[in-house]
Amino acid sequence: MKCYESITEKGTSWTVVSPIVFTYKVTETQNLLDPSNDTLLLGHITDLQQLEAIKQSNKPIKRFVVVDQEVYKIYGPKLTEYLEANNVLYKILALPTTEENKSMKMALKILEEVNNFSIDRRTEPIIAIGGGVCLDIVGLAASLYRRRTPYIRVPTTLLSYIDASVGAKTGVNFANCKNKLGAYIPPAAAFLDLSFIQTVPRRHISNGLAEMLKMALMKHKGLFELLETHGRMLLDTNFQADNSVYGRNCLQVASQATRIAIVTMLEELSPNLWEDDLNRLVDFGHLISPALEMKVLPSLLHGEAVNIDMSYMVYVSKESGLLTEDDKQRIISCMVNMELPVWHEACTMELIQKSLQERLKHSGGLVRMPLPVGLGEAEISNDTSCEILHRAYSKWCDELNVSSDSNCDS
Amino acid sequence: MKCYESITEKGTSWTVVSPIVFTYKVTETQNLLDPSNDTLLLGHITDLQQLEAIKQSNKPIKRFVVVDQEVYKIYGPKLTEYLEANNVLYKILALPTTEENKSMKMALKILEEVNNFSIDRRTEPIIAIGGGVCLDIVGLAASLYRRRTPYIRVPTTLLSYIDASVGAKTGVNFANCKNKLGAYIPPAAAFLDLSFIQTVPRRHISNGLAEMLKMALMKHKGLFELLETHGRMLLDTNFQADNSVYGRNCLQVASQATRIAIVTMLEELSPNLWEDDLNRLVDFGHLISPALEMKVLPSLLHGEAVNIDMSYMVYVSKESGLLTEDDKQRIISCMVNMELPVWHEACTMELIQKSLQERLKHSGGLVRMPLPVGLGEAEISNDTSCEILHRAYSKWCDELNVSSDSNCDS
Ligand SMILES: NC(=O)c1ccc[n+]([C@@H]2O[C@H](COP(=O)([O-])OP(=O)(O)OC[C@H]3O[C@@H](n4cnc5c(N)ncnc54)[C@H](O)[C@@H]3O)[C@@H](O)[C@H]2O)c1
Ligand SMILES: NC(=O)c1ccc[n+]([C@@H]2O[C@H](COP(=O)([O-])OP(=O)(O)OC[C@H]3O[C@@H](n4cnc5c(N)ncnc54)[C@H](O)[C@@H]3O)[C@@H](O)[C@H]2O)c1
Ligand SMILES: [Zn+2]
Ligand SMILES: [Zn+2]
Repeated sequence: MKCYESITEKGTSWTVVSPIVFTYKVTETQNLLDPSNDTLLLGHITDLQQLEAIKQSNKPIKRFVVVDQEVYKIYGPKLTEYLEANNVLYKILALPTTEENKSMKMALKILEEVNNFSIDRRTEPIIAIGGGVCLDIVGLAASLYRRRTPYIRVPTTLLSYIDASVGAKTGVNFANCKNKLGAYIPPAAAFLDLSFIQTVPRRHISNGLAEMLKMALMKHKGLFELLETHGRMLLDTNFQADNSVYGRNCLQVASQATRIAIVTMLEELSPNLWEDDLNRLVDFGHLISPALEMKVLPSLLHGEAVNIDMSYMVYVSKESGLLTEDDKQRIISCMVNMELPVWHEACTMELIQKSLQERLKHSGGLVRMPLPVGLGEAEISNDTSCEILHRAYSKWCDELNVSSDSNCDS
Repeated sequence: MKCYESITEKGTSWTVVSPIVFTYKVTETQNLLDPSNDTLLLGHITDLQQLEAIKQSNKPIKRFVVVDQEVYKIYGPKLTEYLEANNVLYKILALPTTEENKSMKMALKILEEVNNFSIDRRTEPIIAIGGGVCLDIVGLAASLYRRRTPYIRVPTTLLSYIDASVGAKTGVNFANCKNKLGAYIPPAAAFLDLSFIQTVPRRHISNGLAEMLKMALMKHKGLFELLETHGRMLLDTNFQADNSVYGRNCLQVASQATRIAIVTMLEELSPNLWEDDLNRLVDFGHLISPALEMKVLPSLLHGEAVNIDMSYMVYVSKESGLLTEDDKQRIISCMVNMELPVWHEACTMELIQKSLQERLKHSGGLVRMPLPVGLGEAEISNDTSCEILHRAYSKWCDELNVSSDSNCDS
């Protein structure tokens, strides 16, 4: 911390420069709800002395747990059993944490219950178990409670496993805008257990694969090749080993792919936790998709809208000379193979231009468009011409709009 | 930023250590609303190149301003004139920012208006003008908007001038608890202009003097002596020069006293912006007062409740042998002289003990009680005996409860 005093004719001024260090853990584990696994209760504690003290003490552990209602239907009994077996004083709040309910109202409901239950805001983190919606709402509620209460993320969808769990962002929708209110406060820890993915609906697996593909295209050719070769298998097997003809190989691919996705995501997010640097590769697929997603709500899932955005950008890359025709084809095939939409009629040239103008306004006057350069590398472009955008759009419609070819003029 | 990977038999774990640097300015100025003073519009900008660019540009500046309704009644015309003269695209929202209205509901109301007005969340800070209530609500609203929009604090009461403006805390009341929801996000800048204090009601001047006295007792004998000698004059003159028999001397004392209060406050707050260190001298007067303030709401102002707490603690110091009888008398006289309450019947031994137990629970198992040692120094005590607390309480009641002497048993 530094505090500089300066005195001018206008008066005295003090400048405070004060760093806050965020520390958080992302842990892959197995059998998170096995009563003998203490990760969920103690895995966030980094101070070994403190950990020993808690293990020695016979004071029961106290935890407030918020669970997505659908997840609760499936995993509720196991969760209850886990908490009982570990002698935890607990309260489980099962909520319909859907995109439509992702609001401050639900955050306040959670806060009321937290307050009634009464927790120690230093040592009793709030636990969130569910998809990205649940993790985002609970993260925000915890960050507000007593100006900051630690929280723990347990993702149960593929999307939240590789994306929402890794960074610092929390949020709720407001005034019809996605995540308009929120905070950049990382969890104390995120505990990842692939076995939750077992029960995720097929369409939601595709949804998560889109965000994995994003990281592959921006940063990791090996991940792209994994998805190209095994994407369909991952979709068929829900990232699990034992329920398929694919056998053990599947689990190996699943854990390799998720691990690469997480590590590349951490590389991008952790040095830029508060998004002060506006040049972000993780924004690939996120320039046009927010407007598209809100426009057609609820017909496209987040990852689906992202994929449509990426698909168009692949054409922009091709037209900018950054991508060969062959690479372009491989990417689009990979998307189709993972059952992701690659085109949408609501994604008009008008919407694209409006989105890029919005982006310009909120990105310090530059459009900062991440574009794939070959497979697994990227650059950030600020000078893609209008002509390229139009030419890419025409080709995109010609080649990918298989249902009709009359919707494409702008 | 660092990211450590560790692999154990339980799985892979990544630990992210990511520092965020907060930079903010606290600036004392004069004539903040004089059209030729650009502090309110540009004073938060630290990058000189950026500042030049804005001054050269003829794009109008855009600002959303929230003002306490009472302040608006007095300073509204001047504020409007200022914004007009500077060709600002503005929206002024005047709100009844009272303690009773200090809620998430009002924060959301502000957010709706901000969203309708549409601002660039990087370059168009939200301005708050008012007492601590207004600054706290607006600070929270801004911190939530798009996960963080910069805001500017313009304090108009003495209390907010020397206290709420200096730190990082924002908040609203929730579930009948003071500041139960909030954030630790400092403003981009706080602009302090003593002339606002001119119209503050006398009782609210006393209220602010209590927080000044807190800093004096904890850290600065010189400030104590200023308050002891000139406290009554500051109260009579509202910290102004020209409306009194005291003449110019008054302004000198006023600016000296506020400056010492601010600097000592900055010394304590800025290295501990997020209150990770639990040993805080600024907590003096704030161990029993929150419960007292809420119990008798709205009959005691914040600083009044704080003063009653400090007055009792002075007796505890005396009984602990940290303070001479003479110093104790000087402190109590100084309080009385500034028209601050030094005793209250609702501050029972029961309330004191309950408060200290609450404190124990939320302070990592230690009570961490700041106590004055002589004048202008302090220590943090964890082992004040129950017997001392009782003895101090009896004496406190005997000597200061002038209206009756039957209320003091516990
Ligand atoms: N904070 C971040 O950094 C970040 C990153 C990406 C996305 N997000 C947010 O995440 C949200 C999307 O997350 P999502 O795709 O996980 O959606 P979601 O939370 O809505 O979950 C999708 C559906 O799956 C169900 N479900 C969850 N886990 C299940 C399981 N194990 N078995 C069966 N059903 C299950 C849910 O009930 C829901 O119906 C969006 O609101 C987005 O803004 C946040
Ligand atoms: N964030 C922090 O670090 C911090 C520190 C201390 C206190 N606070 C908070 O501040 C609040 C108390 O602040 P406060 O004492 O300023 O109270 P306040 O904001 O309620 O203002 C007191 C009264 O003075 C009026 N007023 C304000 N400026 C005036 C002016 N220039 N002329 C005439 N009237 C004026 C207001 O309308 C109000 O009626 C509490 O809610 C407390 O929690 C916050
Ligand atoms: Zn996304
Ligand atoms: Zn205070």
